Amino acid sequence: MGKVLVLYDSQTGHTKKMAEYVAKGASKFPVEVRLKSVDEATKEDVLWCDGVAVGSPTHLGVMSWKMKKFWDDLVDHWGEIDGKIGCAFSSSGGWGGGNEVACMAILTMLMNYGFLVFGITDYTGDKFTLHYGAVCAGEPREEQEIKACERLGERLAQWVLIYVDGRKEYLENLKGGSQ
Amino acid sequence: MGKVLVLYDSQTGHTKKMAEYVAKGASKFPVEVRLKSVDEATKEDVLWCDGVAVGSPTHLGVMSWKMKKFWDDLVDHWGEIDGKIGCAFSSSGGWGGGNEVACMAILTMLMNYGFLVFGITDYTGDKFTLHYGAVCAGEPREEQEIKACERLGERLAQWVLIYVDGRKEYLENLKGGSQ
Amino acid sequence: MGKVLVLYDSQTGHTKKMAEYVAKGASKFPVEVRLKSVDEATKEDVLWCDGVAVGSPTHLGVMSWKMKKFWDDLVDHWGEIDGKIGCAFSSSGGWGGGNEVACMAILTMLMNYGFLVFGITDYTGDKFTLHYGAVCAGEPREEQEIKACERLGERLAQWVLIYVDGRKEYLENLKGGSQ
Amino acid sequence: MGKVLVLYDSQTGHTKKMAEYVAKGASKFPVEVRLKSVDEATKEDVLWCDGVAVGSPTHLGVMSWKMKKFWDDLVDHWGEIDGKIGCAFSSSGGWGGGNEVACMAILTMLMNYGFLVFGITDYTGDKFTLHYGAVCAGEPREEQEIKACERLGERLAQWVLIYVDGRKEYLENLKGGSQ
Repeated sequence: MGKVLVLYDSQTGHTKKMAEYVAKGASKFPVEVRLKSVDEATKEDVLWCDGVAVGSPTHLGVMSWKMKKFWDDLVDHWGEIDGKIGCAFSSSGGWGGGNEVACMAILTMLMNYGFLVFGITDYTGDKFTLHYGAVCAGEPREEQEIKACERLGERLAQWVLIYVDGRKEYLENLKGGSQ
Repeated sequence: MGKVLVLYDSQTGHTKKMAEYVAKGASKFPVEVRLKSVDEATKEDVLWCDGVAVGSPTHLGVMSWKMKKFWDDLVDHWGEIDGKIGCAFSSSGGWGGGNEVACMAILTMLMNYGFLVFGITDYTGDKFTLHYGAVCAGEPREEQEIKACERLGERLAQWVLIYVDGRKEYLENLKGGSQ
Repeated sequence: MGKVLVLYDSQTGHTKKMAEYVAKGASKFPVEVRLKSVDEATKEDVLWCDGVAVGSPTHLGVMSWKMKKFWDDLVDHWGEIDGKIGCAFSSSGGWGGGNEVACMAILTMLMNYGFLVFGITDYTGDKFTLHYGAVCAGEPREEQEIKACERLGERLAQWVLIYVDGRKEYLENLKGGSQ
Repeated sequence: MGKVLVLYDSQTGHTKKMAEYVAKGASKFPVEVRLKSVDEATKEDVLWCDGVAVGSPTHLGVMSWKMKKFWDDLVDHWGEIDGKIGCAFSSSGGWGGGNEVACMAILTMLMNYGFLVFGITDYTGDKFTLHYGAVCAGEPREEQEIKACERLGERLAQWVLIYVDGRKEYLENLKGGSQ
């Protein structure tokens, strides 16, 4: 059974809330889901999972130092954890404040471990999408924001099912879930 | 007198509208302002200016190919136009759709010509800022979006005044303009 | 049978040479390989493939305008070609001249189409790797440069075999090929 | 008199060595130079300087968590330190291993504080440049690597002299220094 880790850091609770929606989205599919803060998670969680969604507050257009430290400390496992599937989410103080750029920094970090990373082309509302991962300004409140977080989890679960579990039937149902 | 070029590509008219607001913002200050589309502009405009704001629709998280071609074609002047000041703006189809990332690609391109590039820390509305340049989803309509475009132009004019014209008095008045 | 497209633009022939090595690397595995320049390729090639390696000269830290135009023109198929696997390669004028950054711009572009993208953790020589795709300064000449290009093709073929064809046996042999 | 801070983190000593060359380059010009490790530096150093060169080992394509923490902890001064001049340098384990991408992450971080950031168009050797900041794979040993670090410091000092001190005569001598 595919294994999905939702790993987040949160200072104000906004990214935590996003993480809960991402985990909820993944849980709609037949995969095991672990939701962990960066303070609780260990390297075992990373070794365990087939796919990971990494969320961080947008701090200076990059992930928080705590999230960076978590992955820096994993460096002994560098080269062993190739080929997992990864995606990102981030909450910034404002639109135009770096949530996309922070998602890209998270994906860059995951690529360094040999992960395949993705964004999502779907729109979850009027003028609202998640091409580099789910993004919010502040707390996810509006339906389109909540759906974007859920969609990220859904799609991560789907890629794990399709690519890791070989469940090709999910290819035909890629738009499914929260719409 | 400081010289500011606002150079844009636009497909739907959204980025053009942004460009007009950027030019309006710059015009509040004692600088010369040229507003040109990528179809009208020539290398002379780039050689002429002290500072440039480059705007493009967000196409696949990067500037449009036409804007890219404009700068690729300037390559004979590479190395001659060092040290100008540059900034970016972009309109995407949706939030989370790459307008920040496209601004970063524009800034990357300008850095290749030796430009000093900047973003802006100010907020122009509730949860609305322009850390990598002014961004919109679609057309700039709300006050905070219009102000963000204007602020980009204001700040570009101010940096040109301070850094190129040596008008240090503008350092004390950095927040001025559209607030 | 898995299908791999190696798509490149080249001005001096350097990126073309890289593309040939990438295609050679992919051809070591039981996949179909097409090698096409951006002038020959059509949208059918993109629709056809399961995995794509996109190569461009590093022009201003971004892909060339011609490569950008190719993908901009594909926009009618946006949303239809989700979930393919993508990677990048680029030749710059010098080290520190943007070949990594250009690879990231290519990957950003591919993510916009919903592709899963990857880099490679392996070293192909002393202090020589390809974390964001294969990179060269000028022409690929040294063994480590040639191997990096080949490794990119090998790994792309392997991911296609593993993920698209469900050939899990390739997971155990990820380091295989050109070493 | 212009003030230049060279701030670095180093794990193996490679980035420290780069920092020393950057400081040496800056010291060729009439500016005050402080060279500090991230463990010694305080917020006063950042408030003090007109221009900063930030160096970090390339860890996962981003600055080290310690360098990130330093700037995250400065957040109370966010908005006060607008308009300084910034640049980056980084040492990675290998070419293609993220030193350019890490420089971009550093510049992104500095832009969040409202800094004007720059790279350098000059080549310091055959196929060796520093478009996003000075980069090395391992320790700076070859002349072109050492020169690239020095050139970064020289140019930072020059921009501070030109833009902050109003010493326009340095505009005519931009190529000067280590050539």
